[in-house]
Amino acid sequence: SSLRIGLIPADGIGREVIPAARRTLEALGSDLPKLEFHDLLAGFDLFTKTGAALPNETIDIEGGCDAALFGAVSSPSRKVAGYSSPIVALRKELDLYANIRPVVSVEKPSVDLVVVRENTECLYVKQETLTHTDSGREARATRLITERASRRIGTMAFELALARPRKQVTIIHKSNVLSVTDGLFRETVRAVPRLPGVSGRFDSVAIAEQIVDSAVYRLFREPEIYDVMVAPNLYGDILSDAAAALVGSLGLVPSVNAGDSFVMGEPVHGSAPDIEGQGIANPLAAIRSAALMLRHLKYEDAADRIDTAVNHVIREGRVLTPDLGGKSKTDEVVEAVLRRL
Amino acid sequence: SSLRIGLIPADGIGREVIPAARRTLEALGSDLPKLEFHDLLAGFDLFTKTGAALPNETIDIEGGCDAALFGAVSSPSRKVAGYSSPIVALRKELDLYANIRPVVSVEKPSVDLVVVRENTECLYVKQETLTHTDSGREARATRLITERASRRIGTMAFELALARPRKQVTIIHKSNVLSVTDGLFRETVRAVPRLPGVSGRFDSVAIAEQIVDSAVYRLFREPEIYDVMVAPNLYGDILSDAAAALVGSLGLVPSVNAGDSFVMGEPVHGSAPDIEGQGIANPLAAIRSAALMLRHLKYEDAADRIDTAVNHVIREGRVLTPDLGGKSKTDEVVEAVLRRL
Ligand SMILES: CC(C)[C@H](C(=O)O)[C@@H](O)C(=O)O
Ligand SMILES: CC(C)[C@H](C(=O)O)[C@@H](O)C(=O)O
Repeated sequence: SSLRIGLIPADGIGREVIPAARRTLEALGSDLPKLEFHDLLAGFDLFTKTGAALPNETIDIEGGCDAALFGAVSSPSRKVAGYSSPIVALRKELDLYANIRPVVSVEKPSVDLVVVRENTECLYVKQETLTHTDSGREARATRLITERASRRIGTMAFELALARPRKQVTIIHKSNVLSVTDGLFRETVRAVPRLPGVSGRFDSVAIAEQIVDSAVYRLFREPEIYDVMVAPNLYGDILSDAAAALVGSLGLVPSVNAGDSFVMGEPVHGSAPDIEGQGIANPLAAIRSAALMLRHLKYEDAADRIDTAVNHVIREGRVLTPDLGGKSKTDEVVEAVLRRL
Repeated sequence: SSLRIGLIPADGIGREVIPAARRTLEALGSDLPKLEFHDLLAGFDLFTKTGAALPNETIDIEGGCDAALFGAVSSPSRKVAGYSSPIVALRKELDLYANIRPVVSVEKPSVDLVVVRENTECLYVKQETLTHTDSGREARATRLITERASRRIGTMAFELALARPRKQVTIIHKSNVLSVTDGLFRETVRAVPRLPGVSGRFDSVAIAEQIVDSAVYRLFREPEIYDVMVAPNLYGDILSDAAAALVGSLGLVPSVNAGDSFVMGEPVHGSAPDIEGQGIANPLAAIRSAALMLRHLKYEDAADRIDTAVNHVIREGRVLTPDLGGKSKTDEVVEAVLRRL
């Protein structure tokens, strides 16, 4: 039977890098089952045209697809009534509770970490209210941290750490201020190795922790202290961009949004309106996201082939897009990767 | 009449760097009025001894003092019933609504920015609840953003920008997700130049904005794009630590907590339990915080003398603490500064 992959380029350079990832997947040949691609819509552009940022057909992706690749979404520069980020909604609708973002430098051995970001709650529940008072408007947002979500993201972090040479989980929190919410996150993740049923499985994994502000500081100063970093949603969002700065470009950093029954690859970069349409977007984050998606589907060999080819192209340094100091076009980088596959 | 300064060393290396700042102030001689120091208590150690982290006498600081210097507080490694961070409480009690954190590199001209952090609300209102449900515990925190607090921190940011050569304010937010709370922050700060009474005062100040995750990424890649960064409380907390990584050590970064009627200097670093009591804490952040405090009190000449001496010692590079790669003790660094005053 075939492997059905939903493609959701969405906005901006998403429409340039998702086709690049598709070409790479197509070039893998017999390492994969026959591929079937399904084009799906989402995004701010779509919203301005149709009034819907995330059509039902896209939400129903699990019906017709085994996995997906998502591009990037544009953020309107002012609040637009009725618009809400489709990527945030999709993560929640499909219960893709783990956002896994490996940040590995080809040049610096000290940078080899994975940010494991909780993907469904924290401030991303988007429960906000606005009230009018005598001294002006007051806005409130709810930050939700549940034991259930903390436990499953914690378990994911321990599983990932177990498969890595360093075997260390660092819990990121701010429980010196948020003693209840971040206290619950920290305590729940810490308790994962003692869960019933786990029985010794994670005994070889070391647990560390860092307060989020100091974690960002140390990420820049001593990236080698990190292996797997597990964080509530917003801290994970900030941390993964911070980590991307260590490897030279956001255009290199992949991710998957993973749940228990579905996985969606997604480059960490945004829609990059400043370079949209120029054919110079770095396709490597999207291509690596495709590899990460394959790894999650247990096509390890195919994933290895992609990663090896990408690393080769980066190390060689001859065919690179401008974000990495090169002069090549998106297509030229894709072709360089394909030659190395 | 004399200048009365409250000293609140609190925990850890706070007890080593606040005396260093005091010695520096004392050495300024006739550039300042007669100095009167008042020793005040706060901190986690105090809490474990007395049950109170912030005695009333310390909260009443405005009664007997013109300004203050705060050291650092330790965070308990587990939740401790009844303990709550005294620095967060003090900022709120004294309505020190602006946390001003200049990050300037002596070596890299591209790093010359100020983080202006809102200091009284956001998730720091500490309104948290815990509920028990069938699927486990659920914790919620409230993030509060008011028009009033956003307006006054925005005004502070514009005032600071006006006094700087670059004259640019960058608003940090995440309104692509938090459209109501961060939407209000962004919109309110943007509207500051059009407030009644402001009438053209800020016409020369340019306004930019960045989404917080991308702001941290760009901070590392292109710090020169920033002049004054204005941010809600938690983003400001993270951003200022991130910026500190650019200048080589948290031990160099000062701040003031400023309100309309009181100012409190505070190094950005923490209590550093790992090096506490060894006499090797970097005193420069605390000394620079004293300078910043003086600047706020309009003792510009005295502040300039301190900053010039500190920059000299850093540039010279001979007498530095271990965090900067040196071998000197806290006291030796203080003496090097005093020699240059
Ligand atoms: C576009 C935005 C909603 C998104 C997020 O905050 O999750 C992005 O920053 C990311 O990291 O995937
Ligand atoms: C110690 C902690 C409560 C504090 C904060 O989060 O404000 C610290 O990180 C700071 O930046 O001053």
